[in-house]
Formats: sequence, structure tokens, C-alpha cells
Amino acid sequence: MANPYVKQYLMTAGPTPLPPVVSQAMAQPMLYHRAPAFVEMYARVLERLKAVFGTAGDVLVFASSGSGAMESAVANLVRPGEPALVASCGKFGERWVELCDAYGARTVNFETAWGRRIDAAELASQLAANSGVEVVFTTLSETSTGVVNDARELADAAHRHGALIVVDAVSGLGAVPCPQDEWDIDVLVAGSQKALMAPPGLGFASPNAGALERAAAKPGGRYYFDWQRTVDGQRKDPPDSPFTPAVGLVQALDVALGLIAEEGLENVYERHRLLGAATRAAARALELELLGGADEGANVVTAVRLPDSIDGAKVPKLMRDRFGVTIAGGQGRLKGKIARIAHCGYFGAFDIVVTISALEMTLRELGHDAEPGTGVAAAQQVFIEAGVPVGA
Amino acid sequence: MANPYVKQYLMTAGPTPLPPVVSQAMAQPMLYHRAPAFVEMYARVLERLKAVFGTAGDVLVFASSGSGAMESAVANLVRPGEPALVASCGKFGERWVELCDAYGARTVNFETAWGRRIDAAELASQLAANSGVEVVFTTLSETSTGVVNDARELADAAHRHGALIVVDAVSGLGAVPCPQDEWDIDVLVAGSQKALMAPPGLGFASPNAGALERAAAKPGGRYYFDWQRTVDGQRKDPPDSPFTPAVGLVQALDVALGLIAEEGLENVYERHRLLGAATRAAARALELELLGGADEGANVVTAVRLPDSIDGAKVPKLMRDRFGVTIAGGQGRLKGKIARIAHCGYFGAFDIVVTISALEMTLRELGHDAEPGTGVAAAQQVFIEAGVPVGA
Repeated sequence: MANPYVKQYLMTAGPTPLPPVVSQAMAQPMLYHRAPAFVEMYARVLERLKAVFGTAGDVLVFASSGSGAMESAVANLVRPGEPALVASCGKFGERWVELCDAYGARTVNFETAWGRRIDAAELASQLAANSGVEVVFTTLSETSTGVVNDARELADAAHRHGALIVVDAVSGLGAVPCPQDEWDIDVLVAGSQKALMAPPGLGFASPNAGALERAAAKPGGRYYFDWQRTVDGQRKDPPDSPFTPAVGLVQALDVALGLIAEEGLENVYERHRLLGAATRAAARALELELLGGADEGANVVTAVRLPDSIDGAKVPKLMRDRFGVTIAGGQGRLKGKIARIAHCGYFGAFDIVVTISALEMTLRELGHDAEPGTGVAAAQQVFIEAGVPVGA
Repeated sequence: MANPYVKQYLMTAGPTPLPPVVSQAMAQPMLYHRAPAFVEMYARVLERLKAVFGTAGDVLVFASSGSGAMESAVANLVRPGEPALVASCGKFGERWVELCDAYGARTVNFETAWGRRIDAAELASQLAANSGVEVVFTTLSETSTGVVNDARELADAAHRHGALIVVDAVSGLGAVPCPQDEWDIDVLVAGSQKALMAPPGLGFASPNAGALERAAAKPGGRYYFDWQRTVDGQRKDPPDSPFTPAVGLVQALDVALGLIAEEGLENVYERHRLLGAATRAAARALELELLGGADEGANVVTAVRLPDSIDGAKVPKLMRDRFGVTIAGGQGRLKGKIARIAHCGYFGAFDIVVTISALEMTLRELGHDAEPGTGVAAAQQVFIEAGVPVGA
């Protein structure tokens, strides 16, 4: 039996913790997906999603993980034998490469060093050097490094070249601004389990008219993730889903999107900005190098490089097993080298205080000289200056 | 405000009602999918699924609807330009046809009249007449008509021809016997939201060695639903999922599979047999023609043809709006002509009593002469003879 007083704090970038009203929504009796009670909720969810995506177009809902929504973009836009350019800077950028390869594209991987932002001018050069590219795939918030790219600049570069751009906003959407229509992004893909504060299992894609047109020009090779099939269902009055929707997850998402609407998107972004700033301030006070996340806009996940003097792989394990605080370590080439603290979704000031406190105690226990309270004090200072409590 | 005393009864074949302990499982705090608490649960769920599938092989879990699991079979087994045979007898059989077409197969649709079972000898003739067919797709329980096919005989016919067989067991698995290894079925696909008593959002596929081998021989054109990718994850120790699993749904499924294990699969099947027999007895007493479901093995969904003298489309609406009992009407070519009462999953004797009672009152209200209590009495008689309560 686990010690019940080692309370559990979930600080990973997906799944993220659920507000209790969201978890409770799933304890409600099951609804038939064609009964009015569900259909009304579904219509409301689709409208609320448009507000978060910043689009007047369709936000398509799939029963899938965020990777399924990414696959929908590749299955609908990539044509076997034709080039596709991926602008990547981490593990989730690499997923675009794997997906494009699986669908038979001649994939051009324009890779930026992990921990750095993608440069729009370099993307433009890459596109100039690869004149046949008609679709660019990139990442808003690279969860593996904490980097948040400037999706607006990248979209401009793609459009100047005449290409469509698809942006993986799985961890970024609802944490940092990325208004689709205003920034002229052709497709955003996202998932339910990050800043949207719902459980994992729903994927979203928001193809604009140009993206739908390209998809229509090359049908086949897809069914479950075919955009037009879902567009046709969702545009009915009342909206319908071509396959049985994940009713319980939609119920949860409805409540979570209601919380976001109540807080107001601008306040949601400001809260994330503060959580990010406080976490970075704590890392600096502890003299831990910030990976990518040093950028002031990197308010989704903070990745810190762990001291060479300790065994980095032990940090997440010790934090979880002894202190009940679950953070993520590094993925792929960063395995064992970094610690990632998520602050996208249902997070307040004291989640950061607890996590930094546990990190300080963990580093000391592993032999790294960290003065207790140094990081916590720096985080508190950020919150104090902004006026507490955090959250509107 | 809806009248709270018009209590709600969900009698559709997916989503089906959840046992309260299953819904409550989803109200638990979110877990990180790589933390021991989830990983242990995941391993247990994978083992328990094998028991329900009747296989020693892998049961692959996807965050998707049941149709996603069906697509996985087509994406992994169908080769563009090559023939694939679909043995269909209803709307979900037609989904196989649409899927095979989408993936570029030369699809042969061997169609049996809706409401009839597929004949194994006829399937053998069809295969003899289409010698290039290497994969057969068919349906265990055709939810649109209530028909339950003899998957063992159909598998034999396919194997005598040297073809693999994929069986859509989405609504049938866990309601009627279909032991994969014993009946030598190459792939079963299923979903979480029918007899497995969990919410919609999880799809399952259980390719045997031969099916995995065929998939490996033609890689590409798939990623999210690629079997080998998920096999590789699930065979790790501890098992892993290549994409963020739908944590809350897995938590719910774990509890639901625990209930099934506790009741015992044979008892689960016997309970479904009684529910089906009672519903058919009620329909006969009310002189309503049984569609396909007349068969003694059709214990998943009972479909009755509605009297020509009434507007059949009104039946489900009136039953729901006035009496709180949600059943399904007909789909496709059976729209407005039939009523479908599901009894797969979390159902007991009095769910049938309530539904038949509401059906009797509805038919009378629409002008059909049904003696109140006739159907209910016949259903009760079945339960009395079997010894009540139903359920072990």
C-alpha cells in the first residue's frame, strides 16, 4: 500500500491532470450518441473547439490519440512519390518524418538542432532549394524540448513558396496563442489531453478550404481519418460523427472547454505565461541550463539540462517514487540528460512550487549541491510580482 | 428540465450502459501512462483481453472506435489491385466493402440478404469462383439486423480456400462465444463499448501469426494502425503503447474486464442467451416478425419488423421521449422498418421487462393493437423457467 500522504502531482505534458469537474463528467451515465442529450453537447463542443482553434472552419474530431490526428493530415495531404517537407526540431517533428515516409512521400527533413527554434528564413531557403514541395509539416510546441516555434512566421514562409502548412499543436493549443485563421495556418492538429484539460483519446484536425481541396483531389488510401467523411457528418444539422464517438471523452471535453471559455482564452494564455516564467526563474536560480525553453514564449513545457555530475535518468524516478511528483525525463537523444516539467492545462502556482521543491530535494539527494528553497523563492517572486493568485 | 422520474434506459447496441463501478473508474485522477500504476493496469488489461478473445496471441489496443480497428485489418492486409472478398449481410458488412474499396482492393462483395445468416457453403462457392482471394472479411454479430453468423464455419470455408479470415466481432465479442484460437480465426476486431461494458473509444484487433506475416510482407501506407508498431510496444516488458493510450478508458476497461472475469465467460454467454430468448419470446407473443434474430444464437441485438400499419420511424422517438427507453431504429435500407433492442453488455432481466413494456405502450399509442403485458409475460416466462435472477 502506497503512503497516502505522499500526495500525487502529475506534471507531465500529457496526459495532464484533470479538473475534478472534468473527471466527474465521465462518471455520468452513458448516452446514446444519436440521442438529443448527446447531439446538443456535440454541437456545443464543435463550436467551442472553433473558438480555441481561432477558426471559423471545421475542427474535426476523431476518436484517436493526437498522433492519429497527425496521421489524418498526412493521409489526406501526402501523395506517394511526391516531396513533402518536414521542419522538425525534436521527437515530435520526427513523427512527421515517420508518417510522411509511411505514406510514401519523398520526405525532406529540414532538421533544426533539438532545443532550438526553427528559423523561418532557413525554412524559406529550404523550400527554395526543394521547389516541388507542396506541403510543409511542422510543430508549434515541441514537447520533447520545450521549444515553441513561431508558427505565424513559418506559415508565411510556406505560403510565399506556395505550399500548405500543417502545424502540430498537440501540446501547444490552448497554452500559447496560435489563432489559425489570423495566422493563416492551413491545418492545426491537436489532442484532448494537454492544455485542453481532458483525458487522452480525442484527436483534432482543422483543415481549411485549401487543405480540404487538396485532400479531395487525391481520394483513397484512408477511411477512418478521411477528412471529407468527417466534415460531411459534422456539417449536418444536427452534427453527426461517421463513427461512434468517444461519448465519455466528449462529455469531459465539453466541461473542460466550458472552463476555458469561462476563464477567457487571453487569461488562459497569461496564466501559462506566468507558469512558464516562474519555472524558468526557478531553473535559473538553481543554475540549471534551460533547453530551448529559455525563450519567453516557451510556456508549455520547461526542459532543463541536468548536471553532468549526477545520473539524470534517476531524477524523474526519485521525484516520483519518493516525493509523488511525476515529471518526464528526456526522449530519444535526450534520454537521461534532461528533466521536463509540464505546465500546460490544469496548473496553478503551487503546482510549480511543489515541483521545484521536489526537484531541489531530489538533486541534493543525488549529490548535486542545490540550496533548498532557492528555486522555489525565484518562482514565488514571479508570482508575487504578477499578483497572486494565478488564474482569472 | 426533463422529468427526473422518466428514468433513462439505454438499450442501444453501442454505446451500451456502463456498470456504475466502471463509470466511477474514470472519475479517478489521471495517470501518467509510463508510471507504474498505469503500466501494471495496462499489462493486466492486455492479459484479460486475451481471455475474452480466446487467444494466446496479441490483442492490440488502439485509441479509436471499432471502425478504426476494422480499418487496421484492411490497412494491414489488403493490397491495392488485389482481390478481397467481403461476406456481408448488413450495414456493418458494407463497411468492410467501403474500407476495402478505400484501400484499393478489387473488392468482391458476396452479399447475403439483410436479416439472413451467411451460408458457409455459399461462401465456399464464392471463393471457388474467385480464385485469387487471399483475405475474407466478415461479421460475427451484424448489429444492423441482429443476425449472428457462424464464424467457425465461415473460417473453415476461408481456410479450405487458403485465405485468411477477419471477423468483425465489435458487437458480438463477450456476448456470444467466438473463441479465436479454438475456431482458428485469423483476426478478430472489436470495440470497448458493446458487450465489454466500457465507454466507446478503444478498438481491438488480434492478428495471429499468419496475419502478422502477411502484414509484414507489405509495409507502408499505414502508421497509427500499423499492427507491428503496436505489437512491438505491447510485447515489451512492461508493455508499452506507441502512442499516448486513452488512459481513462483503459481504467474503465480494466474494471469492466474484472467484472467479466468474476462472472465467468460461460456465465456471461448464458446471461446473454437468456436475454435474447426472453426478447424473442416477447416479440413472438406480440406477433412481431423477428428479423434474423429468430435464430437461437442471435443473443446480441433483437431486431423486430414493425407493423406496416404504423409509422415505424416514430417508434424509437416515442419510446425515448415519452418513456425514457432508448432503442435504435433501422439503418440504411431498413430505416423506419424495424426496431432494434440491444442486450449485449450490462443488461439484466428487468431491462428487457422495461423495454418490452415501453414497446407495448408505444405500439398501442401509434394505433397498433397490442394487448398490454402480453410481451412482458412471455419474457418473464423465459426468466422464470431459467431460474431468476439472471446473472451469476
